Amino acid sequence: MSAGRFIALEGGEGTGKSTQARLLGEALRQRGLEAVVTREPGGTEGAEAIRQLLLQPPGEGWGPRAEALLFAAARSDHVEKLIRPALKRGAWVICDRFVDSSRAYQGGAGALGDDAIVALHSVGSEGLRPDLTVLIEVVPETVASRLTARDGGESDAIGGRSADYHASVARSFRHLAERDPAGFVQIDGNGSAEQVHQRILSAIDTLTEKGTD
Amino acid sequence: MSAGRFIALEGGEGTGKSTQARLLGEALRQRGLEAVVTREPGGTEGAEAIRQLLLQPPGEGWGPRAEALLFAAARSDHVEKLIRPALKRGAWVICDRFVDSSRAYQGGAGALGDDAIVALHSVGSEGLRPDLTVLIEVVPETVASRLTARDGGESDAIGGRSADYHASVARSFRHLAERDPAGFVQIDGNGSAEQVHQRILSAIDTLTEKGTD
Repeated sequence: MSAGRFIALEGGEGTGKSTQARLLGEALRQRGLEAVVTREPGGTEGAEAIRQLLLQPPGEGWGPRAEALLFAAARSDHVEKLIRPALKRGAWVICDRFVDSSRAYQGGAGALGDDAIVALHSVGSEGLRPDLTVLIEVVPETVASRLTARDGGESDAIGGRSADYHASVARSFRHLAERDPAGFVQIDGNGSAEQVHQRILSAIDTLTEKGTD
Repeated sequence: MSAGRFIALEGGEGTGKSTQARLLGEALRQRGLEAVVTREPGGTEGAEAIRQLLLQPPGEGWGPRAEALLFAAARSDHVEKLIRPALKRGAWVICDRFVDSSRAYQGGAGALGDDAIVALHSVGSEGLRPDLTVLIEVVPETVASRLTARDGGESDAIGGRSADYHASVARSFRHLAERDPAGFVQIDGNGSAEQVHQRILSAIDTLTEKGTD
């Protein structure tokens, strides 16, 4: 039996992460693997409750520090109750956003600093890293048209910030990937969902080949 | 005008912190000072929402790491929106529990370690310390009879643990106080509420005398 692998899909709003997570899960299942497709913030009952607090903040909204702690709390529950048990039984876990979203949004663009986010992740989830983080990158025009095509809804509280903010998030993601080339693969997210899916599968195959133990 | 002071009341369940916080607030107001009496977890709209998640956990309950992050998130909101603004305008803030409760419960008795709790407090609230922490200590028999006399209710989720756990919490509080004699005053919490109140007032007077600036 192949051991479980932990794949995180990262990128800004409208880069196609959710679609690609679903397609990747289906492809892995067609290969006879157990694939758990999940998302952050959320994925467990506790983390989904925290997600609601993040998306619809009570009162005047969260400051950046409280927000970062809430993301880390949701992640801690998700890692403890869903991700680690799945990996332990040999499943593949495909996660739509993980700690690098906190590093890019709250740490980089949010100006809280990377060290702070890494410290929270260390306490909350013992610093768990994905086996591979797939960073999906698209040109800003594609993001804009995809976000306009959406229903709106959940994207508002986390995604509804300025173009400058989103550009800063994209830069932060790129820096993280460049600083850890062994842990990241950067994927061109322009084109059809199927085209992007094939690019991701090629990147994953490297991991599958070296992954039988 | 006297500058604001930040007083935290700490101790285990049934040590009389809430009653003493109220009495201290009234005494300070009789001296013509603005006194804000608040509590943790809670004190702001956001922090009270997190308090609900802590007291009535969704799903199977929080692990110690997620729990510590949620306490830190509630504290961050409380510090940012209520405590710092009150201190800034010159009010006295009397807080029923603060970071040392997290250190004693999650850090010491909960075995997460003091460094982890201090790290969360550093990120969440820039490490804000009270001007004085009043540790109220009572003999275990008094705690037992006071807790039995209570309605129950909110004490359950945080307080409903074994006698060994509560003894470990009391030890952790004492260690914190002994390691920081300038920041703590240990108060004998046995006797009537009025007797304990007078002991606390005497301790606070030291702070008031040196506190005009």
